[in-house]
Amino acid sequence: MSVIGVVGGGQLARMMIGPALEMGVDLRVLAESEAASARLAASAVGDYREVEVVLDFAREVDVLSFDHELVPDEVLAELRRAGVNLQPTPEALRFAQDKLAMRRRLAELNIPQPAWQAVHSGGELDAFIRQHGGSAVVKTPRGGYDGKGVRRVSAASEVSQWFGHGELLAEAVVGFDRELAQLFARRPSGEIRLWPLVETVQSDGVCVEVIAPAPSLHSAISARAEAIAHQLADALAITGVCAIELFATDAGELWVNELAMRPHNSGHWSQDGSRTGQFEQHLRAVANLPLGDTGLIWPVSVMRNIFGGTHDLDRSAAEVMERYPAAKIHLYGKPARPGRKLGHVNLVGTDLAQLRAASAEIAQLFG
Amino acid sequence: MSVIGVVGGGQLARMMIGPALEMGVDLRVLAESEAASARLAASAVGDYREVEVVLDFAREVDVLSFDHELVPDEVLAELRRAGVNLQPTPEALRFAQDKLAMRRRLAELNIPQPAWQAVHSGGELDAFIRQHGGSAVVKTPRGGYDGKGVRRVSAASEVSQWFGHGELLAEAVVGFDRELAQLFARRPSGEIRLWPLVETVQSDGVCVEVIAPAPSLHSAISARAEAIAHQLADALAITGVCAIELFATDAGELWVNELAMRPHNSGHWSQDGSRTGQFEQHLRAVANLPLGDTGLIWPVSVMRNIFGGTHDLDRSAAEVMERYPAAKIHLYGKPARPGRKLGHVNLVGTDLAQLRAASAEIAQLFG
Repeated sequence: MSVIGVVGGGQLARMMIGPALEMGVDLRVLAESEAASARLAASAVGDYREVEVVLDFAREVDVLSFDHELVPDEVLAELRRAGVNLQPTPEALRFAQDKLAMRRRLAELNIPQPAWQAVHSGGELDAFIRQHGGSAVVKTPRGGYDGKGVRRVSAASEVSQWFGHGELLAEAVVGFDRELAQLFARRPSGEIRLWPLVETVQSDGVCVEVIAPAPSLHSAISARAEAIAHQLADALAITGVCAIELFATDAGELWVNELAMRPHNSGHWSQDGSRTGQFEQHLRAVANLPLGDTGLIWPVSVMRNIFGGTHDLDRSAAEVMERYPAAKIHLYGKPARPGRKLGHVNLVGTDLAQLRAASAEIAQLFG
Repeated sequence: MSVIGVVGGGQLARMMIGPALEMGVDLRVLAESEAASARLAASAVGDYREVEVVLDFAREVDVLSFDHELVPDEVLAELRRAGVNLQPTPEALRFAQDKLAMRRRLAELNIPQPAWQAVHSGGELDAFIRQHGGSAVVKTPRGGYDGKGVRRVSAASEVSQWFGHGELLAEAVVGFDRELAQLFARRPSGEIRLWPLVETVQSDGVCVEVIAPAPSLHSAISARAEAIAHQLADALAITGVCAIELFATDAGELWVNELAMRPHNSGHWSQDGSRTGQFEQHLRAVANLPLGDTGLIWPVSVMRNIFGGTHDLDRSAAEVMERYPAAKIHLYGKPARPGRKLGHVNLVGTDLAQLRAASAEIAQLFG
């Protein structure tokens, strides 16, 4: 099997290790530190912003993929020049790295999204805010995640310190009823497989729970989300796993919120709820191996994120094992800090209400 | 979570790595070589027959368990003296290491088994053969596996070179219709969980396929196998995963053939067919964590072993992925040699005939 290199040693790389071992894939990780979540598979430790570090690492692999979208353009360009097989390619990855590039491309493709504008000054932002009902969501085009680099404002003065580093993205606040995510994988051959559309539940801008499939969907919504995934996958020549975060209304409207070109929190349920989990699928896709069946194993899966808090992680995990013998616990091997994502629990079965009740109780245990 | 050490770097240790990572267990392996199947988790490389090697390794773990049953008594005794937490304990492990000790203990417990005798000479063996219909199965009490150290004979002269190293085990040839295996896990607290009884299909004394649950079982057989598992687990104070290999007749007779105190080939199906796979369960059990639910995910699972042959392993694996997108391929990362076990494929679903047809075709692809 191929040697697959992953830049970044976070939990996404960590969760590729098990599937890689089982498939006989030689997975190697360029980790940020000896203590990285994916340290077990680290064949190098270094800074992904340094060309020589990444080039040295890339020389030993057949395919290079990513745990995050933070590798700088100059590094990607050098890797490309050196003939490294990058999956996804820098051309595709750009639309997950740069939210303004993504908005521009979606507009060209006529894919529904919130009203948006690139703004260069407080004056431009205030004008946008006035035109869109008195508020806007402002985003730094690069580097944001989990609510960081994203702020809802009613005046430009609230993000005055964000100006001066280039354009900002201003988006209209859309009145959505819930957030959905459409996950898929595509390989260089063009083969694509989608998982069912899921609902993501947020708290303070951070995903806390995912329900797969999204319950009581408006009949047209799934078909539209799938059409968007197919259109984007092919137009952007995406390879590997990709998540499209969506806003939806109960009336059937749908807008693209964000794109991620890697396994994504909204797909963690698939480890235990789908015939092929997203980590296995990402490896198959970037190695251009036939994709796995994305059918459901269970009618319902609920994923609950675990954050650092006042709990003792090991004790709470043992308590979950005791009370929910069928719960699947996934921990990331990271030191606890308040609010830090430390793991997740997958609950699978047939009764949504029962699974969500268990999920709520598990959230309490990890409070 | 606990630090769990495993002596032996074979595929069983390898397949613990994924579940250990997900549960947040720090798994460390004492491997035979840098090229061992479980090399990724190797924290030490050395000879498990050397007391100092194993003691050094054991000092860094909370629990010591095993990938095989070959650690010598003297080494186990030294570990015990040094206060190492051994799971299973040497007292329990002995019955998996020594087939004569196992036979004697089963006799004390009145558990059904083939007629047997400890034989010290060709004369004793020939007498046993005459008393039992002209043939017998002769076994070296220690060190055999996959048909090695086991021979069916009709005269002692066929194994004359086996004498002179202590007692041999002679067993009557029982007329069975099929072979079954009862897998379970028990933790030091006494909690025990069983998987359903499975059928193992052999070819030339080596398991090639496992069907879970065993199809069209005589109604009393499952209950008897479960009763034997409970009795043995408690009487021997077994910890970790244990497999009881059984001979069965269609008339409902059942005899214990062998015992293995570790994850076992007959349980590989559980990785994809049960709520809790045997590798995850072994880690939970030896760490004295609550055991996972052993319920079936699918009505039927079929496991097909992959052996070294004339095929190109990677090409055949890709072919299986292409033709069976729901098949779960598990490779052991071992160099191919004719007849060597290199991996297995799990097929799960609802239609036994369909799964077995796929399993047969997969066997051809890896021919």
